[in-house]
Amino acid sequence: MSDFVLIKIHESDNVAIILNQGGAPAGAELPGGIELLEAVPQGHKVSLTDIPKGGEVRRYNEVVGYAKHDIKQGSWVSEAVVDMPTPPKLADLPLATREKPVLEPLEGYTFDGYRNADGSVGTKNLLGISTSVQCVAGITDYVVKLIKQTLLPKYPNVDGVVALNHTYGCGVAITAPAAIVPIRTLQNIAKNPNFGGEIMVIGLGCEKLSPSRLLEIDETQAVNILPNSEAAKKLDDHVVSLQDENHHGFQDMVDHIMEMAEAHLARLNQRRREPCPVSELVVGMQCGGSDAFSGVTANPAVGYASDLIVRAGGSVMFSEVSEVRDAIHLLTPRAETVEVGQALLREMQWFDDYLSQGQADRSANTTPGNKKGGLNNIVEKSLGSITKSGNSPIVDVLSPGERIRKRGLNFAATPASDFICGTLQFASGMNIQVFTTGRGTPYGLEVAPVIKVSTNSTLGRRWHDLIDMDAGRIASKEITLEEAGWELFHLILDVASGRKQVAADRLGLHNDLVLFNPAPVT
Amino acid sequence: MSDFVLIKIHESDNVAIILNQGGAPAGAELPGGIELLEAVPQGHKVSLTDIPKGGEVRRYNEVVGYAKHDIKQGSWVSEAVVDMPTPPKLADLPLATREKPVLEPLEGYTFDGYRNADGSVGTKNLLGISTSVQCVAGITDYVVKLIKQTLLPKYPNVDGVVALNHTYGCGVAITAPAAIVPIRTLQNIAKNPNFGGEIMVIGLGCEKLSPSRLLEIDETQAVNILPNSEAAKKLDDHVVSLQDENHHGFQDMVDHIMEMAEAHLARLNQRRREPCPVSELVVGMQCGGSDAFSGVTANPAVGYASDLIVRAGGSVMFSEVSEVRDAIHLLTPRAETVEVGQALLREMQWFDDYLSQGQADRSANTTPGNKKGGLNNIVEKSLGSITKSGNSPIVDVLSPGERIRKRGLNFAATPASDFICGTLQFASGMNIQVFTTGRGTPYGLEVAPVIKVSTNSTLGRRWHDLIDMDAGRIASKEITLEEAGWELFHLILDVASGRKQVAADRLGLHNDLVLFNPAPVT
Repeated sequence: MSDFVLIKIHESDNVAIILNQGGAPAGAELPGGIELLEAVPQGHKVSLTDIPKGGEVRRYNEVVGYAKHDIKQGSWVSEAVVDMPTPPKLADLPLATREKPVLEPLEGYTFDGYRNADGSVGTKNLLGISTSVQCVAGITDYVVKLIKQTLLPKYPNVDGVVALNHTYGCGVAITAPAAIVPIRTLQNIAKNPNFGGEIMVIGLGCEKLSPSRLLEIDETQAVNILPNSEAAKKLDDHVVSLQDENHHGFQDMVDHIMEMAEAHLARLNQRRREPCPVSELVVGMQCGGSDAFSGVTANPAVGYASDLIVRAGGSVMFSEVSEVRDAIHLLTPRAETVEVGQALLREMQWFDDYLSQGQADRSANTTPGNKKGGLNNIVEKSLGSITKSGNSPIVDVLSPGERIRKRGLNFAATPASDFICGTLQFASGMNIQVFTTGRGTPYGLEVAPVIKVSTNSTLGRRWHDLIDMDAGRIASKEITLEEAGWELFHLILDVASGRKQVAADRLGLHNDLVLFNPAPVT
Repeated sequence: MSDFVLIKIHESDNVAIILNQGGAPAGAELPGGIELLEAVPQGHKVSLTDIPKGGEVRRYNEVVGYAKHDIKQGSWVSEAVVDMPTPPKLADLPLATREKPVLEPLEGYTFDGYRNADGSVGTKNLLGISTSVQCVAGITDYVVKLIKQTLLPKYPNVDGVVALNHTYGCGVAITAPAAIVPIRTLQNIAKNPNFGGEIMVIGLGCEKLSPSRLLEIDETQAVNILPNSEAAKKLDDHVVSLQDENHHGFQDMVDHIMEMAEAHLARLNQRRREPCPVSELVVGMQCGGSDAFSGVTANPAVGYASDLIVRAGGSVMFSEVSEVRDAIHLLTPRAETVEVGQALLREMQWFDDYLSQGQADRSANTTPGNKKGGLNNIVEKSLGSITKSGNSPIVDVLSPGERIRKRGLNFAATPASDFICGTLQFASGMNIQVFTTGRGTPYGLEVAPVIKVSTNSTLGRRWHDLIDMDAGRIASKEITLEEAGWELFHLILDVASGRKQVAADRLGLHNDLVLFNPAPVT
């Protein structure tokens, strides 16, 4: 029997990847009696048959490339020998044509969350301090440190205080059409259930994005807000503007912010976790630092868990337009309605145009690490990426930063950049995130728990204290895909309930939120 | 005698601004026997003559607008009654036509700086920890905190340790033409004299921007770097990659980074300040939160100090393309050569195109605060902004993020966004910055000292502990423009020498660096 293990995804595939850590050497005898003609690294593809020049290279029962020249059985099917297919044409794709799968309702599962007045549920209980402009970041950081030292210990039911710094708000073309994206992202971040409606805004006073616009009190400049009105009260309760004439110097500003923070902390401190149905979970699915195992282990397990969440009435978002674009023909049939299918196409077209305006194209996705991990191109990467979406119908499509409207499986259109995707999903209402990685990314957010899943056990073992779950065990057959899906489902409920802490929170490793601003700066 | 003071900049101007805090009420008798027809806020413009519909509104001896309808003498010349002029056409501007002004060499001034092996001089002695990708930001922050707590006290000659986090490195179209801007910015930040050549880079391993490219060791992926080569040694001394197979988990990564940091701190700790000629200063000039006083007080004082620095053989950068564009006809004659003039035009054209691609134009600059402060439009703002450049010839033009090449007055092309401008100037080699503000901006950088100058004493008094110098005293005639220029010149030398601390450093208020990335994210 061969010492080497090949993973073939679909019976019609003519390539398979090598599971063994360290890969396989030239001359190795592979399962099926194939002799390896050259050394092949772990996760990389071996041709199972002769493939003639121009012939299809098939994985996931899809074409992931065309042979640049004759490829003999047992060859390494590396990037160098494969031409990338063109992306699916958006014009003639089947919309909402798939027969609805049977997804039995899943009952009896709950998590312990913080229920808000608007019905939404938080998985953390955080004081969020947003900013209307980057100018105030230094003072915001200063105050957050002070709150952590002096106020937070007095309010033990509050999990933390977070500075929502960003680089928007001024020095930007705020009336450009694409400015809608960063603006609504900031507006919707403020409404995330993890802040319990107690968001504060530190503003400056001369900035383009006014705090009243951020809080959606007034879309213009708050000049017409009447004293003693609802709007004026909301501003008074939530906003400190540093240029306010009442502030005589720095210490005055700090005192005012601290006073406001204490009022919000006192209210947040009243919140308690209570059992909530899974239908209140909004789970963001993301991958970063993918490899050839992503589409075999972690992402399908995420897809399985995604279907469980949907069956239990909850919401799931998958994202990353540039990692969906080349597999869009597999998604449009899954749209629940023709309109949802059209919305998918609209987001694909928007991103095609955006990239082409910058003289880039979809091949700008795939990193050196993806390639080292065995992914030849964005087509192969995308086919693995979309397995995160499971098998549910796609019920809605969110433009970048839009708030979620429907329970079930949503496509939240975002760039694939991990931090931008995370930020936009958070703006859309995500209250817990699952992040799969093959190469290893120490990703974490302070605003919502992030469960990190490794795609291979080599990484899972090496980053034992940074990874929350190793899906590499699927490839080594320690667990089945279904078992991994259920394990992840339970882990999501435990983390959302605060019963388990993710590695990033335990170590305090958090990345900043990063806005998507497709409009010019000035 | 009138209780009110009007500031008229040029004798041919037909508007003047009101100096008085609180402005002037309707009916007020102004100097020159003009009766004010309506209340006018501080800093806003009063018409000194009748201006017919379509007539020129003149300030700085330039047209800042056209009357929308007949404007009577004594009226408030607000944004509502003025049409904005079109910008100067770039095609027919005079290049390098001005006769060179006599700027006598200024001798005998030095500052105490940290001289580097390459001849450059730092004003701070900092351990800079750069990152090749945003993924590592959480761990970088963790380690910087640990270094501050455990290592820094052992190396008292080191002023600090700074995490150079950013949002570039992956999830970006790295081969798009405009990607050159963020890449060279990161490369040149690493070379800033304040880091003394001891920069460290925390990388991940799978990112698009490799640490070796950031350090300009190898433009591709470092795969061909030979063991024991110069390049390999430089990587070993300066780079930690988190995905390195030798790191067994988080603590291993931390230990490795701490070990490397200690080696760099030990070398930095050997550095001592020594007297250096002013020719080693690279002073960045910037304004943010401008008002109508900016072009009357602080910016001309900065211009005066700028000429002093240039006369002493030093380097000055002024920037902010969108605040120069409408006054470009006043700058092209000052170019030292036709080539420099053409370079100015090239940068203006680039930005025109950049804005227009995003369906924005130059009017995207000017904020609500600028307008409240009396600036009607970008034309008026620009005329005040360029006074920061003094009277020296423009010797060179730097594209965004390029390193300075010539001593003297440089135009460093950057967006006006305060943090992007500061970051790009820092990448260009700036080792001290002067920042003027009328509305009030609590701007500060950890990587270089920032001297904040208020344009009016109302702000200067209110933000007494945030502002380093009040140029409002020029308007109230407490000091002359020349005196303010000399005061600022001496302040620059004192701060660069570490003899005086700026408010931002004293309070620890620092903004993050922000990259300019005109290319798409993916």
